[in-house]
Amino acid sequence: MRARDLVSTFPIVSLDTPVIDAARLLAEQDLPGLIVIDDDGLPLNILPGTQVLRLAVPGYCQDDPALARVVDEAHADAFLRSLAGRTVREALPTAPRELPVTDPDATVLEIAALMARTRSPLVAIMDAGHLRGAVTLQALLDRLLAP
Amino acid sequence: MRARDLVSTFPIVSLDTPVIDAARLLAEQDLPGLIVIDDDGLPLNILPGTQVLRLAVPGYCQDDPALARVVDEAHADAFLRSLAGRTVREALPTAPRELPVTDPDATVLEIAALMARTRSPLVAIMDAGHLRGAVTLQALLDRLLAP
Repeated sequence: MRARDLVSTFPIVSLDTPVIDAARLLAEQDLPGLIVIDDDGLPLNILPGTQVLRLAVPGYCQDDPALARVVDEAHADAFLRSLAGRTVREALPTAPRELPVTDPDATVLEIAALMARTRSPLVAIMDAGHLRGAVTLQALLDRLLAP
Repeated sequence: MRARDLVSTFPIVSLDTPVIDAARLLAEQDLPGLIVIDDDGLPLNILPGTQVLRLAVPGYCQDDPALARVVDEAHADAFLRSLAGRTVREALPTAPRELPVTDPDATVLEIAALMARTRSPLVAIMDAGHLRGAVTLQALLDRLLAP
């Protein structure tokens, strides 16, 4: 079994997508994460769900979640909505990281190792310079554990 | 909105659970991760799905996923099944890490910050020394984005 047997089309977001729309896409389609493409349609970043959430959480709370407790409940409830118009471009981390990207020939072991190493429940599959889709952890496990 | 409004019961695994059963639980119930409890029923570790996968991937592949390509397809396909009887206890990382655990009073912002910081799509909720359940990223987003 190879990546080509497991890949499926996957929703993408661009740098100009509002963060709130990215969060909504994640929630509504129950996705494990999102693929952010650049202006050429190539994967620029692959964000696990927790890191999409990170785009919305104020920095001082990320450093010390206990500090979030000083924010009262009404304001805490509204933190996602306060994003109003902020785009993925403005919220994306600038530090480079290893992207979970491979090709259609990758074996299931390669995909699993890449997911484990990059802590990403999805791996983008590039085929001859084009984004073909993604393999999700769920799809991988379903196939590996099938009777 | 507080953790108590979002918490739900969540499957647990013990140190004696075979890794293959843990992977099956994750896949069959489409869980974002697993809570591993110790002999006193307290959360010992909380593993995102990718880290449950990590329990099964040979170390040399984790360090360099490209090395996995030297394993032929038939053997790669069988890597999960080769776990045969290996328990969570034997596979769990020993390095301590910050656990995504909080109490029923935590606000949604606190939970979101904890998920972002620990890269965990689930947070365990402890209530007066007992594990009450977990809040998932999906449950959090669904409630925050509800019209």
